[in-house]
Amino acid sequence: MTDPRAAIHRLLEGMPQPDREAEAQARARQRQLTKPPGSLGRLEELAAWLSAWQGRHPPRLDRIGILVFAGNHGVAARGVSAYPQEVTRQMVRNFEAGGAAINQLARTFEAELRVVPLALEQPTADFTCAAAMSAAELVEALEAGFAAVDRDWDLCAVGEMGIANTTAAAAIAAALAGEPAIRFAGPGTGLDGEGVRRKAEVIDQALAFHGDALRDPIEVLRRLGGREIAAMAGAILGARHRRVPLLLDGFVATAAAAVLHALDPLSLAHVQAGHRSAEPAHRLLLERLGLVPLLDLGMRLGEASGAAVAIGILRAAWACHTGMATFESAGVSRSERAG
Amino acid sequence: MTDPRAAIHRLLEGMPQPDREAEAQARARQRQLTKPPGSLGRLEELAAWLSAWQGRHPPRLDRIGILVFAGNHGVAARGVSAYPQEVTRQMVRNFEAGGAAINQLARTFEAELRVVPLALEQPTADFTCAAAMSAAELVEALEAGFAAVDRDWDLCAVGEMGIANTTAAAAIAAALAGEPAIRFAGPGTGLDGEGVRRKAEVIDQALAFHGDALRDPIEVLRRLGGREIAAMAGAILGARHRRVPLLLDGFVATAAAAVLHALDPLSLAHVQAGHRSAEPAHRLLLERLGLVPLLDLGMRLGEASGAAVAIGILRAAWACHTGMATFESAGVSRSERAG
Repeated sequence: MTDPRAAIHRLLEGMPQPDREAEAQARARQRQLTKPPGSLGRLEELAAWLSAWQGRHPPRLDRIGILVFAGNHGVAARGVSAYPQEVTRQMVRNFEAGGAAINQLARTFEAELRVVPLALEQPTADFTCAAAMSAAELVEALEAGFAAVDRDWDLCAVGEMGIANTTAAAAIAAALAGEPAIRFAGPGTGLDGEGVRRKAEVIDQALAFHGDALRDPIEVLRRLGGREIAAMAGAILGARHRRVPLLLDGFVATAAAAVLHALDPLSLAHVQAGHRSAEPAHRLLLERLGLVPLLDLGMRLGEASGAAVAIGILRAAWACHTGMATFESAGVSRSERAG
Repeated sequence: MTDPRAAIHRLLEGMPQPDREAEAQARARQRQLTKPPGSLGRLEELAAWLSAWQGRHPPRLDRIGILVFAGNHGVAARGVSAYPQEVTRQMVRNFEAGGAAINQLARTFEAELRVVPLALEQPTADFTCAAAMSAAELVEALEAGFAAVDRDWDLCAVGEMGIANTTAAAAIAAALAGEPAIRFAGPGTGLDGEGVRRKAEVIDQALAFHGDALRDPIEVLRRLGGREIAAMAGAILGARHRRVPLLLDGFVATAAAAVLHALDPLSLAHVQAGHRSAEPAHRLLLERLGLVPLLDLGMRLGEASGAAVAIGILRAAWACHTGMATFESAGVSRSERAG
């Protein structure tokens, strides 16, 4: 299989739908629990969402996975990042040694961390003058992402590491929106204003170079994306097919989701945005996808760190939903007016 | 000691200040960790805040306490709540039996829960026609709150349970702001629009009855507050004196903090707002106190539940700060431009 269009469309067509009966059971239980109706706010929605996508009530939260995909980008040579490209591999080693932020967060929230480096020794082509990936490379990355989701996970968080990948993400977002790069280019890991302007110019060059080919979202991903971005799109589809509800990390992960959204908005129904990143265009991108982030803490690290912090919110939602007493069992009076 | 003014002012005058050296050590360590400078956003600020108020670096997070104060309100007889007053005692039993939301959240985030019922058999007086508490009752509640904070805690979350206490909280907020009640009255546990209007009328009656006496924030607390609200103010001061950084729960807890803020804005320097409640006036009150909530999940349960969910964010901040590798130890290259 080396035709990415056929591969993606096959996966989009067979997507499982939410289990409305499990969801209704979750909502019915919420009304019995010792609290005013709706008073746990989004925690109640999240419990129903877990039920709907896991396809069972009560939902489980025994095993939570965190996926971090890593890739290298030819466009890094254009001076669009504050860090040298070798940092991608160094950070993968740091993940493997347990020293990165995501390692501490995975331990804190009792999640399993899987790091998936994708041909780091072969950066994608510089997308200002070539397609970043061949069709075969794109399919390989999509499949790696699809395969990385464990069907025994009850929830999964998805993020990335890749020097220069906010440039790729901004290029994807601009291409999908049909707007100039400056709306989506931001400081990334630490560019100054001049650096951001140069980054936007590099992206605009790429948009001009690829021209009308960018009308196809799959070509947007192949020409402007990167292996870790394609892998995240694959993981979103893999999670859907295995009924694993998914927490999306920041700007780069959301750009991967935006490609799927452009193909089929319903493909993200099993996805929650873990957080809103400090990268300025993340707000815009989330709004366009109709995703309301769970957290807004000014984080902009990537490596699934924002989604990982949001796991704590899911643990809270699950614990209340499955552990609370009912009005009847606790002998608590119900509202005289409400509920 | 039955003079609340003398008691509070004595506590306000002796307040410990932040340990700037421990805070500087925390910030210095942040710059060494394997991440772009500032990329953990508010998690970095929280680690520095823990250090500053605990007065040590690295900060500890071994023991976390959750305090839930419960009280009953004479104004409940005026039909300002969707629930009957006996629910306060029933929910205290539910806390003791482990069936409430806060029990599940305390277990999830490994915190110790202490429930402090305050003379539930003696509701405060109906504040529309009398002072809610005598001076002696106010001092007793303040002292109960002050005493409830364990000096061995590394962090503490503070909240409440008390049928009709969003009415008391809105009355306090309106009195401190010198504004009409309708700006601060909200649905609480589930009033409809007509119920909210009636609640605002009841509060406006009280504001008119107490008149100029409400120019003194301590009189606002005594005349319009309740035992659990006074106890939360006492706990905020107790935490300050024992160098325990504090997470505030929702609207009612923030009204208690607002009384202290009116006496001395610096009295809340060791406080973070755990979340923004769905009670509409909470946003306004937080803004006036200069507090930026950690979470905004539409919760409006009270019982410290929002602050408890925020404990997860503090655990994340602490884990990254104390567990991450440094650039040097991990062999990761630093930015070529930034940091």
